[in-house]
Amino acid sequence: MKVLRSNKNPIIKPEDVAPSGPDLKVIGVFNCGAVKFNGEILLLMRVAEAPECDRTDIVKVPMLDIETNSIVIKEFKKTDKNIDICDPRVIKADQKNYLTSISHFRIARSKNGIDFKIDKKPAMFPENIFERFGIEDPRITEIDGVYYIGYSAVSDITGITVCLASTCDFVSFKRHGIIFLPDNKDFALFPEKIGGKYYAFNRPSSSDFGIKDMWISQSDDLLSWGNHKIMMTGGEGFWDDGRIGCGAVPFKIKEGWLEIYHGASKDDKYCLGAALLDINDPSKIISRSYNPIMEPEKPYEKIGFVNNVVFTCGAFCEDGIVKIYYGAADKYIAYAEIGLIEILGSLK
Amino acid sequence: MKVLRSNKNPIIKPEDVAPSGPDLKVIGVFNCGAVKFNGEILLLMRVAEAPECDRTDIVKVPMLDIETNSIVIKEFKKTDKNIDICDPRVIKADQKNYLTSISHFRIARSKNGIDFKIDKKPAMFPENIFERFGIEDPRITEIDGVYYIGYSAVSDITGITVCLASTCDFVSFKRHGIIFLPDNKDFALFPEKIGGKYYAFNRPSSSDFGIKDMWISQSDDLLSWGNHKIMMTGGEGFWDDGRIGCGAVPFKIKEGWLEIYHGASKDDKYCLGAALLDINDPSKIISRSYNPIMEPEKPYEKIGFVNNVVFTCGAFCEDGIVKIYYGAADKYIAYAEIGLIEILGSLK
Repeated sequence: MKVLRSNKNPIIKPEDVAPSGPDLKVIGVFNCGAVKFNGEILLLMRVAEAPECDRTDIVKVPMLDIETNSIVIKEFKKTDKNIDICDPRVIKADQKNYLTSISHFRIARSKNGIDFKIDKKPAMFPENIFERFGIEDPRITEIDGVYYIGYSAVSDITGITVCLASTCDFVSFKRHGIIFLPDNKDFALFPEKIGGKYYAFNRPSSSDFGIKDMWISQSDDLLSWGNHKIMMTGGEGFWDDGRIGCGAVPFKIKEGWLEIYHGASKDDKYCLGAALLDINDPSKIISRSYNPIMEPEKPYEKIGFVNNVVFTCGAFCEDGIVKIYYGAADKYIAYAEIGLIEILGSLK
Repeated sequence: MKVLRSNKNPIIKPEDVAPSGPDLKVIGVFNCGAVKFNGEILLLMRVAEAPECDRTDIVKVPMLDIETNSIVIKEFKKTDKNIDICDPRVIKADQKNYLTSISHFRIARSKNGIDFKIDKKPAMFPENIFERFGIEDPRITEIDGVYYIGYSAVSDITGITVCLASTCDFVSFKRHGIIFLPDNKDFALFPEKIGGKYYAFNRPSSSDFGIKDMWISQSDDLLSWGNHKIMMTGGEGFWDDGRIGCGAVPFKIKEGWLEIYHGASKDDKYCLGAALLDINDPSKIISRSYNPIMEPEKPYEKIGFVNNVVFTCGAFCEDGIVKIYYGAADKYIAYAEIGLIEILGSLK
């Protein structure tokens, strides 16, 4: 597959983003929703922040304190035998999991889609019980002038849920609460009703059966969801045999709906694939990637906060070119283009 | 708490139930929905069956084969180092989990509520991809002459989901598919609309955060669910600090809605508690059990397929008496009565 990466990649780096508070440092700016808004490309970016820490014997975890509506820091001694710090993202302590960073959403804007101006302040910041450990991986879908934002809310009290927000101006955001129960993530809303129903991808988890597959659900009002169908599973021994979930918001082409999704292998290499879905019933797959359309190759994709990750939450198709904004190694935002004909030709 | 157990307990035992097929034996008849129907008490019972096996060196697991719509048996050698048979309910092999038994639903009827006549054939039997490993823990709610049955469907492909079925006659049953995504169980539908909405308890799981709490959700049509609220969590160091979920279908009393729920301690002792909920907004808890209202005490509750379990899916309140049908040790059905005033007096 011929992937044309921007020669300015990574186009946005952690040092480009101002921290949201004095005790925090930005350690990652990566998975971002992408829309055209007011003649510009607007990215709603996941910004991950960790507490400043000048001591090597302790590890600090940030979380939202609901009562004061502020970030509080919890400290663990690295020598404590009851804690597990193997995974850079998670501290396991006393049978509980904590995240080493907390994410919020920040806006970046660009005329040319490559050079971005980044807001100094967060657009959406964790603010309720569902968001105690952060908000992650926003995907934006415009329907009739309203921009719906589906995202993962992470909390030690309510697990990983899918929440919905909306905005008309990207200045004020209205939260609509939980729409998918824990654990669920990777929600992407289709940009129009199909057969009178809203459709969305989502990715529930079954811990008892170790399943992380891509489902599609229906709704009349965007708030209550039903008619759930399991849609795509990874192939044993294939590039996506670890887990699979949606990526970009799907877009319509004359052949059907095209979805750029993510799959991870059992050794946690995250790649992108594509699936062509029936125009009238997007739960029906016409064809999908046998091999990834894009995989981690460049240094900024192979080495970061989590190595070997390309992951998209937003892509467009213009003039036969699929334009992909993607998170690289859970640290950077990068940009790539792939010919639509080439993607379609690769599907089986 | 004064609990009056039937002196005929356990009122239904595995040997009372005819196997559904020649190669299966009934190893448990336990969690049952309970309704009054045609002047009788009708139980819809979970019947667990395991493959007949006269060899001691192998273990057999049953599952539904979708293509032939029949039960097939998979065998494992006990000496195989790649399998884990510590838990009598589960075989872990090659990173997959299998259940050692497969459950279906069977009807029992009684004039006096104690002496039951048991159908020879299943009422509902696993029949689709969501039910490959069985159907479990039915709860029955009557609304306007339709009996809705919410149950757990277990599958290696789709995890543990909540499915809905309905019947008007307990002869033919219509399936309505998945209503809660994996992993979710312990669904109980309220017997009337409240403020124009259907309400139901359900129990999602968060594997990443080890959370198994009781939620309440709303619906307009019983098929799409939203406005999810976390409702009750177990108390650290209390009898329900392992996990918590609904039990019986809630019933209305003059003080509000009364729910008999289950909680398990971290060492897996399953007890029953009670919660009084606001009559107009059942997501609001007025009071709940500080101590269990019932716990495993009798031999049939303490020793069975899973020891130390009392678990209810169906209870009535009549003449100030709460009448509870319950699964004992995941093996038997038993019956107990508790005075309503006594339950209410124990709530904090």
